[in-house]
Amino acid sequence: MKTLKERILQDGKVLGENVLKVDSFLTHQVDPLLMQEIGREFAQIFKEEGITKVVTIEASGIAPALFTGLFLNVPVIFARKQKSLTMKEELLTTEVYSFTKEVTSTVSISKKFLSEQDNVLIIDDFLANGQAALGLTALCKQAGAQVTGIGIVIEKSFQSGRQLLEEKGLRVASLARIASLKNRQAQFISEDE
Amino acid sequence: MKTLKERILQDGKVLGENVLKVDSFLTHQVDPLLMQEIGREFAQIFKEEGITKVVTIEASGIAPALFTGLFLNVPVIFARKQKSLTMKEELLTTEVYSFTKEVTSTVSISKKFLSEQDNVLIIDDFLANGQAALGLTALCKQAGAQVTGIGIVIEKSFQSGRQLLEEKGLRVASLARIASLKNRQAQFISEDE
Repeated sequence: MKTLKERILQDGKVLGENVLKVDSFLTHQVDPLLMQEIGREFAQIFKEEGITKVVTIEASGIAPALFTGLFLNVPVIFARKQKSLTMKEELLTTEVYSFTKEVTSTVSISKKFLSEQDNVLIIDDFLANGQAALGLTALCKQAGAQVTGIGIVIEKSFQSGRQLLEEKGLRVASLARIASLKNRQAQFISEDE
Repeated sequence: MKTLKERILQDGKVLGENVLKVDSFLTHQVDPLLMQEIGREFAQIFKEEGITKVVTIEASGIAPALFTGLFLNVPVIFARKQKSLTMKEELLTTEVYSFTKEVTSTVSISKKFLSEQDNVLIIDDFLANGQAALGLTALCKQAGAQVTGIGIVIEKSFQSGRQLLEEKGLRVASLARIASLKNRQAQFISEDE
Protein backbone atom coordinates (compact mmCIF):
# COMPACT_ATOMS: atom_id res chain seq x y z
CA MET A 1 0.00 0.00 0.00
CA LYS A 2 1.79 3.02 -1.38
CA THR A 3 0.45 5.75 0.95
CA LEU A 4 1.38 3.68 3.98
CA LYS A 5 4.91 2.96 2.80
CA GLU A 6 5.50 6.60 1.96
CA ARG A 7 4.26 7.55 5.41
CA ILE A 8 6.58 5.02 7.07
CA LEU A 9 9.55 6.47 5.15
CA GLN A 10 8.50 10.03 5.97
CA ASP A 11 7.45 9.77 9.62
CA GLY A 12 8.63 6.41 10.94
CA LYS A 13 11.71 6.38 13.17
CA VAL A 14 14.09 3.46 12.91
CA LEU A 15 15.48 3.09 16.42
CA GLY A 16 17.48 -0.07 15.85
CA GLU A 17 17.59 -3.10 13.59
CA ASN A 18 14.37 -4.43 15.12
CA VAL A 19 12.52 -1.28 16.16
CA LEU A 20 10.41 0.90 13.91
CA LYS A 21 8.53 3.59 15.75
CA VAL A 22 5.35 4.86 14.09
CA ASP A 23 3.82 6.64 17.05
CA SER A 24 3.06 9.80 15.06
CA PHE A 25 0.40 8.13 12.90
CA LEU A 26 -0.43 4.62 14.19
CA THR A 27 0.49 3.55 17.71
CA HIS A 28 0.00 6.67 19.84
CA GLN A 29 -1.05 9.58 17.67
CA VAL A 30 -3.31 8.26 14.91
CA ASP A 31 -4.06 9.66 11.46
CA PRO A 32 -7.77 8.90 10.95
CA LEU A 33 -7.63 9.41 7.17
CA LEU A 34 -4.80 6.92 6.81
CA MET A 35 -6.67 4.47 9.06
CA GLN A 36 -9.72 4.85 6.85
CA GLU A 37 -7.64 4.04 3.79
CA ILE A 38 -6.09 1.03 5.54
CA GLY A 39 -9.54 -0.25 6.54
CA ARG A 40 -10.77 0.13 2.98
CA GLU A 41 -7.79 -1.86 1.72
CA PHE A 42 -8.29 -4.75 4.17
CA ALA A 43 -12.00 -4.82 3.34
CA GLN A 44 -11.14 -4.98 -0.36
CA ILE A 45 -8.70 -7.86 0.16
CA PHE A 46 -11.11 -9.96 2.28
CA LYS A 47 -14.49 -8.91 0.83
CA GLU A 48 -15.25 -12.32 -0.75
CA GLU A 49 -14.51 -14.30 2.41
CA GLY A 50 -17.83 -13.94 4.22
CA ILE A 51 -16.18 -12.35 7.25
CA THR A 52 -18.63 -12.02 10.18
CA LYS A 53 -16.36 -10.44 12.83
CA VAL A 54 -13.14 -8.45 12.92
CA VAL A 55 -10.99 -9.28 15.95
CA THR A 56 -8.05 -7.22 17.21
CA ILE A 57 -6.20 -6.53 20.45
CA GLU A 58 -6.11 -3.31 22.43
CA ALA A 59 -4.87 -0.67 21.91
CA SER A 60 -3.00 0.01 18.64
CA GLY A 61 -4.99 -2.55 16.64
CA ILE A 62 -8.30 -0.82 17.28
CA ALA A 63 -8.00 2.01 14.74
CA PRO A 64 -7.22 -0.10 11.64
CA ALA A 65 -9.67 -2.81 12.79
CA LEU A 66 -12.49 -0.32 13.27
CA PHE A 67 -12.40 0.95 9.69
CA THR A 68 -12.03 -2.60 8.38
CA GLY A 69 -15.21 -3.52 10.25
CA LEU A 70 -16.91 -0.40 8.93
CA PHE A 71 -16.20 -1.27 5.30
CA LEU A 72 -17.02 -4.98 5.77
CA ASN A 73 -20.13 -3.96 7.74
CA VAL A 74 -19.40 -6.33 10.64
CA PRO A 75 -18.75 -5.81 14.38
CA VAL A 76 -15.21 -5.34 15.69
CA ILE A 77 -14.07 -7.06 18.89
CA PHE A 78 -10.99 -5.89 20.70
CA ALA A 79 -9.47 -8.45 23.03
CA ARG A 80 -8.70 -7.00 26.46
CA LYS A 81 -5.33 -7.36 28.13
CA GLN A 82 -6.76 -7.43 31.64
CA LYS A 83 -10.12 -8.19 33.12
CA SER A 84 -12.30 -5.29 34.09
CA LEU A 85 -14.72 -5.53 37.03
CA THR A 86 -17.65 -5.33 34.64
CA MET A 87 -16.44 -8.36 32.63
CA LYS A 88 -17.64 -11.12 34.90
CA GLU A 89 -19.13 -13.54 32.43
CA GLU A 90 -17.32 -16.40 30.82
CA LEU A 91 -14.18 -15.52 28.95
CA LEU A 92 -12.03 -17.00 26.24
CA THR A 93 -8.52 -16.52 27.62
CA THR A 94 -4.94 -17.03 26.53
CA GLU A 95 -1.45 -15.76 27.33
CA VAL A 96 0.47 -13.55 24.91
CA TYR A 97 4.14 -12.70 25.29
CA SER A 98 5.22 -9.32 23.92
CA PHE A 99 8.87 -9.19 22.84
CA THR A 100 8.60 -5.40 22.60
CA LYS A 101 7.28 -4.86 26.11
CA GLU A 102 8.91 -7.97 27.59
CA VAL A 103 5.74 -8.92 29.45
CA THR A 104 3.21 -11.72 29.26
CA SER A 105 -0.38 -10.51 29.16
CA THR A 106 -3.58 -12.39 29.79
CA VAL A 107 -5.73 -11.65 26.76
CA SER A 108 -9.50 -12.21 26.85
CA ILE A 109 -12.65 -12.04 24.79
CA SER A 110 -16.13 -12.59 26.17
CA LYS A 111 -17.44 -15.96 25.03
CA LYS A 112 -20.77 -14.51 23.98
CA PHE A 113 -19.26 -12.55 21.07
CA LEU A 114 -17.77 -15.48 19.13
CA SER A 115 -19.37 -18.74 18.05
CA GLU A 116 -18.99 -21.63 15.62
CA GLN A 117 -20.87 -19.57 13.06
CA ASP A 118 -18.16 -16.91 12.88
CA ASN A 119 -15.59 -16.33 10.13
CA VAL A 120 -13.02 -14.07 11.72
CA LEU A 121 -10.62 -11.59 10.21
CA ILE A 122 -7.84 -10.74 12.66
CA ILE A 123 -6.35 -7.24 12.29
CA ASP A 124 -3.25 -5.95 14.04
CA ASP A 125 -0.88 -3.02 13.68
CA PHE A 126 2.38 -5.01 13.67
CA LEU A 127 3.50 -8.54 12.87
CA ALA A 128 6.89 -9.42 14.29
CA ASN A 129 7.08 -12.73 16.14
CA GLY A 130 3.41 -13.47 15.60
CA GLN A 131 2.56 -13.96 19.25
CA ALA A 132 -0.43 -11.59 19.31
CA ALA A 133 -1.92 -13.04 16.12
CA LEU A 134 -1.41 -16.59 17.40
CA GLY A 135 -3.06 -15.68 20.70
CA LEU A 136 -6.05 -14.13 18.96
CA THR A 137 -6.29 -17.20 16.70
CA ALA A 138 -6.30 -19.42 19.79
CA LEU A 139 -9.16 -17.39 21.32
CA CYS A 140 -11.22 -17.73 18.13
CA LYS A 141 -10.59 -21.48 18.00
CA GLN A 142 -11.64 -21.87 21.65
CA ALA A 143 -15.01 -20.48 20.53
CA GLY A 144 -15.14 -22.85 17.55
CA ALA A 145 -14.90 -19.89 15.15
CA GLN A 146 -12.90 -20.07 11.93
CA VAL A 147 -10.00 -17.65 11.35
CA THR A 148 -10.20 -16.80 7.67
CA GLY A 149 -7.38 -14.31 7.47
CA ILE A 150 -4.94 -12.06 9.26
CA GLY A 151 -4.54 -8.45 8.13
CA ILE A 152 -1.38 -6.69 9.26
CA VAL A 153 -0.58 -3.01 8.83
CA ILE A 154 3.23 -3.33 9.13
CA GLU A 155 5.04 -6.66 8.86
CA LYS A 156 8.63 -7.04 9.94
CA SER A 157 9.37 -9.70 7.38
CA PHE A 158 12.83 -10.37 8.81
CA GLN A 159 11.20 -11.81 11.94
CA SER A 160 9.45 -15.15 12.20
CA GLY A 161 5.79 -14.16 12.55
CA ARG A 162 4.55 -14.69 8.98
CA GLN A 163 6.23 -18.08 8.68
CA LEU A 164 4.76 -19.21 11.99
CA LEU A 165 1.25 -18.18 10.93
CA GLU A 166 1.52 -19.64 7.42
CA GLU A 167 2.73 -22.95 8.86
CA LYS A 168 -0.59 -23.07 10.69
CA GLY A 169 -2.43 -22.59 7.40
CA LEU A 170 -3.36 -18.98 8.07
CA ARG A 171 -3.58 -16.45 5.23
CA VAL A 172 -1.61 -13.31 6.03
CA ALA A 173 -2.11 -10.02 4.16
CA SER A 174 0.30 -7.23 5.14
CA LEU A 175 0.02 -3.70 3.76
CA ALA A 176 3.72 -2.90 4.25
CA ARG A 177 6.36 -5.64 4.42
CA ILE A 178 9.69 -4.54 5.80
CA ALA A 179 12.70 -6.56 4.63
CA SER A 180 15.21 -4.75 6.82
CA LEU A 181 15.69 -1.89 9.27
CA LYS A 182 19.46 -1.82 8.88
CA ASN A 183 21.35 1.48 8.65
CA ARG A 184 18.42 3.33 10.22
CA GLN A 185 16.43 2.83 7.03
CA ALA A 186 13.24 0.88 6.37
CA GLN A 187 13.63 -1.30 3.24
CA PHE A 188 10.44 -2.84 1.88
CA ILE A 189 10.16 -6.24 0.23
CA SER A 190 10.50 -5.46 -3.45
CA GLU A 191 7.51 -7.48 -4.71
CA ASP A 192 5.06 -5.05 -3.18
CA GLU A 193 6.92 -1.78 -3.75
CA MET B 1 -28.55 11.30 20.41
CA LYS B 2 -31.54 9.14 19.65
CA THR B 3 -29.82 6.13 18.00
CA LEU B 4 -27.41 5.83 20.91
CA LYS B 5 -30.13 5.98 23.55
CA GLU B 6 -32.21 3.40 21.72
CA ARG B 7 -29.14 1.17 21.53
CA ILE B 8 -28.46 1.55 25.26
CA LEU B 9 -32.06 0.56 26.04
CA GLN B 10 -31.91 -2.36 23.62
CA ASP B 11 -28.45 -3.81 24.28
CA GLY B 12 -27.12 -2.23 27.48
CA LYS B 13 -27.16 -4.34 30.64
CA VAL B 14 -27.86 -2.60 33.94
CA LEU B 15 -25.89 -4.63 36.47
CA GLY B 16 -26.50 -2.42 39.50
CA GLU B 17 -27.39 1.15 40.38
CA ASN B 18 -23.96 2.33 39.18
CA VAL B 19 -23.08 -0.16 36.48
CA LEU B 20 -24.22 -0.02 32.86
CA LYS B 21 -22.54 -2.57 30.65
CA VAL B 22 -22.35 -1.73 26.95
CA ASP B 23 -19.76 -4.26 25.90
CA SER B 24 -21.78 -5.45 22.91
CA PHE B 25 -21.39 -2.17 20.99
CA LEU B 26 -18.89 0.16 22.72
CA THR B 27 -16.42 -1.19 25.29
CA HIS B 28 -15.44 -4.64 23.99
CA GLN B 29 -17.36 -5.46 20.82
CA VAL B 30 -17.78 -2.24 18.84
CA ASP B 31 -20.38 -1.27 16.26
CA PRO B 32 -18.41 0.72 13.65
CA LEU B 33 -21.52 2.31 12.12
CA LEU B 34 -22.67 3.62 15.50
CA MET B 35 -19.16 4.89 16.21
CA GLN B 36 -19.20 6.71 12.87
CA GLU B 37 -22.48 8.37 13.78
CA ILE B 38 -21.12 9.32 17.21
CA GLY B 39 -18.01 10.82 15.65
CA ARG B 40 -20.11 12.81 13.20
CA GLU B 41 -22.20 14.16 16.09
CA PHE B 42 -19.18 15.28 18.15
CA ALA B 43 -17.64 16.90 15.06
CA GLN B 44 -20.91 18.76 14.46
CA ILE B 45 -21.04 20.01 18.06
CA PHE B 46 -17.44 21.24 18.12
CA LYS B 47 -16.89 22.22 14.47
CA GLU B 48 -16.65 25.98 15.16
CA GLU B 49 -14.07 25.64 17.93
CA GLY B 50 -10.89 25.36 15.86
CA ILE B 51 -9.99 21.99 17.35
CA THR B 52 -6.46 20.88 16.37
CA LYS B 53 -6.24 17.53 18.21
CA VAL B 54 -8.62 14.94 19.63
CA VAL B 55 -7.28 13.31 22.80
CA THR B 56 -8.64 10.14 24.38
CA ILE B 57 -7.46 7.30 26.60
CA GLU B 58 -6.98 3.66 25.68
CA ALA B 59 -8.87 1.49 25.01
CA SER B 60 -12.63 2.16 24.87
CA GLY B 61 -12.23 5.85 24.01
CA ILE B 62 -10.37 5.13 20.78
CA ALA B 63 -13.32 4.17 18.57
CA PRO B 64 -15.49 7.26 19.18
CA ALA B 65 -12.39 9.51 19.19
CA LEU B 66 -11.15 8.15 15.88
CA PHE B 67 -14.31 9.04 13.96
CA THR B 68 -14.46 12.44 15.67
CA GLY B 69 -10.93 13.11 14.43
CA LEU B 70 -11.88 11.87 10.97
CA PHE B 71 -14.80 14.30 10.66
CA LEU B 72 -12.86 17.22 12.20
CA ASN B 73 -9.88 16.28 10.00
CA VAL B 74 -7.38 16.37 12.89
CA PRO B 75 -5.07 13.75 14.47
CA VAL B 76 -6.24 11.61 17.39
CA ILE B 77 -3.95 10.91 20.33
CA PHE B 78 -4.69 8.08 22.70
CA ALA B 79 -3.04 8.40 26.08
CA ARG B 80 -1.29 5.19 27.15
CA LYS B 81 -1.87 3.55 30.51
CA GLN B 82 1.64 2.15 30.73
CA LYS B 83 4.94 2.94 29.13
CA SER B 84 6.08 0.77 26.27
CA LEU B 85 9.74 0.12 25.61
CA THR B 86 9.55 2.13 22.40
CA MET B 87 8.27 5.25 24.21
CA LYS B 88 11.49 6.55 25.60
CA GLU B 89 11.22 10.25 24.88
CA GLU B 90 9.80 12.83 27.22
CA LEU B 91 6.30 12.18 28.45
CA LEU B 92 3.45 14.17 29.90
CA THR B 93 2.34 11.98 32.81
CA THR B 94 -0.40 11.93 35.41
CA GLU B 95 -2.19 9.45 37.70
CA VAL B 96 -5.80 8.43 37.08
CA TYR B 97 -7.89 6.45 39.54
CA SER B 98 -10.58 4.20 38.07
CA PHE B 99 -13.52 3.59 40.40
CA THR B 100 -14.71 0.83 38.05
CA LYS B 101 -11.46 -1.10 38.03
CA GLU B 102 -10.32 0.07 41.47
CA VAL B 103 -6.80 0.76 40.26
CA THR B 104 -4.62 3.82 39.77
CA SER B 105 -2.98 3.99 36.35
CA THR B 106 -0.10 6.10 35.16
CA VAL B 107 -1.37 7.79 32.02
CA SER B 108 1.03 9.30 29.49
CA ILE B 109 1.21 11.22 26.24
CA SER B 110 4.45 11.96 24.39
CA LYS B 111 5.35 15.63 24.79
CA LYS B 112 6.02 16.05 21.10
CA PHE B 113 2.35 15.62 20.14
CA LEU B 114 0.90 18.53 22.14
CA SER B 115 1.96 22.16 22.27
CA GLU B 116 0.76 25.62 23.26
CA GLN B 117 -0.72 25.96 19.78
CA ASP B 118 -3.21 23.14 20.34
CA ASN B 119 -6.95 23.39 21.00
CA VAL B 120 -7.90 19.98 22.30
CA LEU B 121 -11.20 18.12 22.25
CA ILE B 122 -11.16 15.28 24.78
CA ILE B 123 -13.36 12.28 23.91
CA ASP B 124 -14.20 9.40 26.21
CA ASP B 125 -16.71 6.58 26.32
CA PHE B 126 -18.01 7.16 29.86
CA LEU B 127 -18.20 10.05 32.31
CA ALA B 128 -18.80 8.96 35.90
CA ASN B 129 -16.51 10.51 38.49
CA GLY B 130 -14.59 12.50 35.90
CA GLN B 131 -11.17 11.16 36.84
CA ALA B 132 -10.11 10.16 33.33
CA ALA B 133 -11.25 13.47 31.79
CA LEU B 134 -9.50 15.43 34.56
CA GLY B 135 -6.33 13.41 34.02
CA LEU B 136 -6.38 14.04 30.27
CA THR B 137 -7.03 17.73 30.91
CA ALA B 138 -4.01 17.83 33.23
CA LEU B 139 -1.82 16.26 30.52
CA CYS B 140 -2.96 18.87 27.98
CA LYS B 141 -2.28 21.69 30.43
CA GLN B 142 1.19 20.35 31.15
CA ALA B 143 1.87 20.88 27.44
CA GLY B 144 0.40 24.39 27.53
CA ALA B 145 -2.47 23.29 25.25
CA GLN B 146 -6.01 24.54 25.69
CA VAL B 147 -8.84 22.09 26.39
CA THR B 148 -11.78 23.46 24.44
CA GLY B 149 -14.31 20.76 25.19
CA ILE B 150 -15.03 17.30 26.48
CA GLY B 151 -17.21 14.95 24.44
CA ILE B 152 -18.68 11.99 26.29
CA VAL B 153 -20.58 9.09 24.78
CA ILE B 154 -22.45 8.04 27.95
CA GLU B 155 -22.70 10.27 31.01
CA LYS B 156 -23.81 8.90 34.36
CA SER B 157 -25.39 12.16 35.41
CA PHE B 158 -26.09 10.88 38.94
CA GLN B 159 -22.34 10.83 39.60
CA SER B 160 -20.13 13.84 40.16
CA GLY B 161 -18.06 13.97 36.97
CA ARG B 162 -19.89 16.66 35.02
CA GLN B 163 -20.09 19.00 38.00
CA LEU B 164 -16.38 18.56 38.70
CA LEU B 165 -15.47 19.35 35.08
CA GLU B 166 -17.85 22.33 34.80
CA GLU B 167 -16.47 23.79 38.02
CA LYS B 168 -13.13 23.90 36.22
CA GLY B 169 -14.71 25.85 33.38
CA LEU B 170 -14.76 22.92 30.96
CA ARG B 171 -17.55 22.51 28.41
CA VAL B 172 -19.02 19.00 28.52
CA ALA B 173 -21.15 17.58 25.68
CA SER B 174 -22.63 14.14 26.36
CA LEU B 175 -24.58 12.18 23.76
CA ALA B 176 -26.57 10.18 26.32
CA ARG B 177 -27.15 11.45 29.87
CA ILE B 178 -28.33 8.84 32.31
CA ALA B 179 -30.34 10.15 35.27
CA SER B 180 -30.66 6.80 37.00
CA LEU B 181 -29.94 3.09 36.72
CA LYS B 182 -32.44 2.11 39.42
CA ASN B 183 -34.70 -0.94 39.00
CA ARG B 184 -32.38 -2.37 36.33
CA GLN B 185 -33.51 0.35 33.92
CA ALA B 186 -31.59 3.21 32.31
CA GLN B 187 -33.53 6.48 32.65
CA PHE B 188 -32.26 9.38 30.56
CA ILE B 189 -32.32 13.04 31.59
CA SER B 190 -35.57 14.30 30.10
CA GLU B 191 -34.18 17.48 28.48
CA ASP B 192 -32.35 15.48 25.89
CA GLU B 193 -34.84 12.67 25.34
